[in-house]
Amino acid sequence: MISRCMAYSPAHITGFFTTENSDDPRKKGSRGAGIVLEAGCLTTVEKAVPKNRRSLSKKIFINGKEETARTTDAVLSKILEDEGVTVSSSFAVPLMGGFGASASGAMSTAIAINHLYKKNLTFKEISEVVHVAEVEKKTGLGDADAITIGGGLVVRKRGGSINYGSFDIVPVEPTKVGYVFFGEVSTREILGDDKMMNRINEAGLKKLKGLLKKPTLENFMNLSYEFSCETGLATGRVMDAIEEVRNNGGLASMAMLGETVFAIGNYASLKDFGELEETEITFEHAHIM
Amino acid sequence: MISRCMAYSPAHITGFFTTENSDDPRKKGSRGAGIVLEAGCLTTVEKAVPKNRRSLSKKIFINGKEETARTTDAVLSKILEDEGVTVSSSFAVPLMGGFGASASGAMSTAIAINHLYKKNLTFKEISEVVHVAEVEKKTGLGDADAITIGGGLVVRKRGGSINYGSFDIVPVEPTKVGYVFFGEVSTREILGDDKMMNRINEAGLKKLKGLLKKPTLENFMNLSYEFSCETGLATGRVMDAIEEVRNNGGLASMAMLGETVFAIGNYASLKDFGELEETEITFEHAHIM
Repeated sequence: MISRCMAYSPAHITGFFTTENSDDPRKKGSRGAGIVLEAGCLTTVEKAVPKNRRSLSKKIFINGKEETARTTDAVLSKILEDEGVTVSSSFAVPLMGGFGASASGAMSTAIAINHLYKKNLTFKEISEVVHVAEVEKKTGLGDADAITIGGGLVVRKRGGSINYGSFDIVPVEPTKVGYVFFGEVSTREILGDDKMMNRINEAGLKKLKGLLKKPTLENFMNLSYEFSCETGLATGRVMDAIEEVRNNGGLASMAMLGETVFAIGNYASLKDFGELEETEITFEHAHIM
Repeated sequence: MISRCMAYSPAHITGFFTTENSDDPRKKGSRGAGIVLEAGCLTTVEKAVPKNRRSLSKKIFINGKEETARTTDAVLSKILEDEGVTVSSSFAVPLMGGFGASASGAMSTAIAINHLYKKNLTFKEISEVVHVAEVEKKTGLGDADAITIGGGLVVRKRGGSINYGSFDIVPVEPTKVGYVFFGEVSTREILGDDKMMNRINEAGLKKLKGLLKKPTLENFMNLSYEFSCETGLATGRVMDAIEEVRNNGGLASMAMLGETVFAIGNYASLKDFGELEETEITFEHAHIM
């Protein structure tokens, strides 16, 4: 009997966005665009041993430490019945840094438990469960959809889950992405700030139109930079790092929503601002390992 | 100035299908299911050198030999204007063997010329151009969509291009796929045989319902096998090879449409029937290299 399963999900950086409201969490989401990254999350799920009541609980470990992980926990509640399970997610990207880590963790968990417990959900059904969990827990609005659509530069033309939104991909070359993570930003807090949300929605819509007019990676990076400036989301050190990359001929912007600068092209100067990490744009979607 | 670009597309084996007619080629297509394979097509496109009139023609080389390649040729006509180009496609799967080679070649070509000539088409726009070319040239009805959706086991719930059809993915483990290619089958000829098409459409619809009821790779393989038998598409040697794999605990069926047996699990016995080739199910979609 198989008692464990491992699944992978890429991560996702949103460059700009605009929110879309609905009372139905499947239709609530965000429009915008972002890049899907090879560095993501690997999750192992293990069945609790039968006849051991304590082990029938649901435990979630994030990078080795037991955590609440509200989005993943919500996904477990939606897919499992009274089965006990231990979830261990290992992230190659920072948490709360604008990498869609909550979606990446929840997606890899959902794919693994679907397989292990033979729930026979399709990929779109799984994706919708994760999208709804993200909306309900206020941890994200579009990452689950982007990492379902698969790799590259994903455009969310209409918000909502994979079954309700409308998505496209901008073809891009294999591209290295450098980033420096300065600190956490709570998506929950930003989404609750009405004044900020007005600025975000106004700027995000303009940038989306701009990208659809000229769908290229370079244009995406420039529009994302403008979005960071116009919304005022970028902190001083984020702005300094972005400007330095741009002065050296690279393209950089802020990951939405995290105090993270991500860049393509010549981004070597980022190392002067913090620990420079590297990954690349992937063309894969989440899957069982 | 960049003068060449390379792109990759996976291949795709349909296990069962049912056709959907429409006067609009974007809405014409097929329902059914198939697996997306890592082995596919690598295409290099090169700009013709300016001021050399002869080189402004469009040339297509398939595995090193100049060919007509009607689907790829149609794609060139749809995307390029009077630009000259040389297209060189190299296939890791047999041609006319039920691997969606025409779609794979045309898709990799379209992605490469879109990038090289800065046509700024999105991935879905490119996919639709390929789908329409396939329908018009009668070389395929669903492969372009499956290799756009990305890897895994792709279900086409409603036919048509990526913008008109409805698609889902059955989550599968990384899986090796073995195959033996016996000979070519002309998709064009089968699609023109009304009696055969009636049998195909009747059986295909039943198998699709069966897969949606229990969306697993094993069920897909069994339903594909039943489809091969019920339609009478499998030749004697194809049937012998399939039965031998099944007798050894593996799962096998016929690639639609080619005289090819593909199999998962214990398929070692396939080597007694011809040259056994191996690839695996991929989770990537087509992209620039």
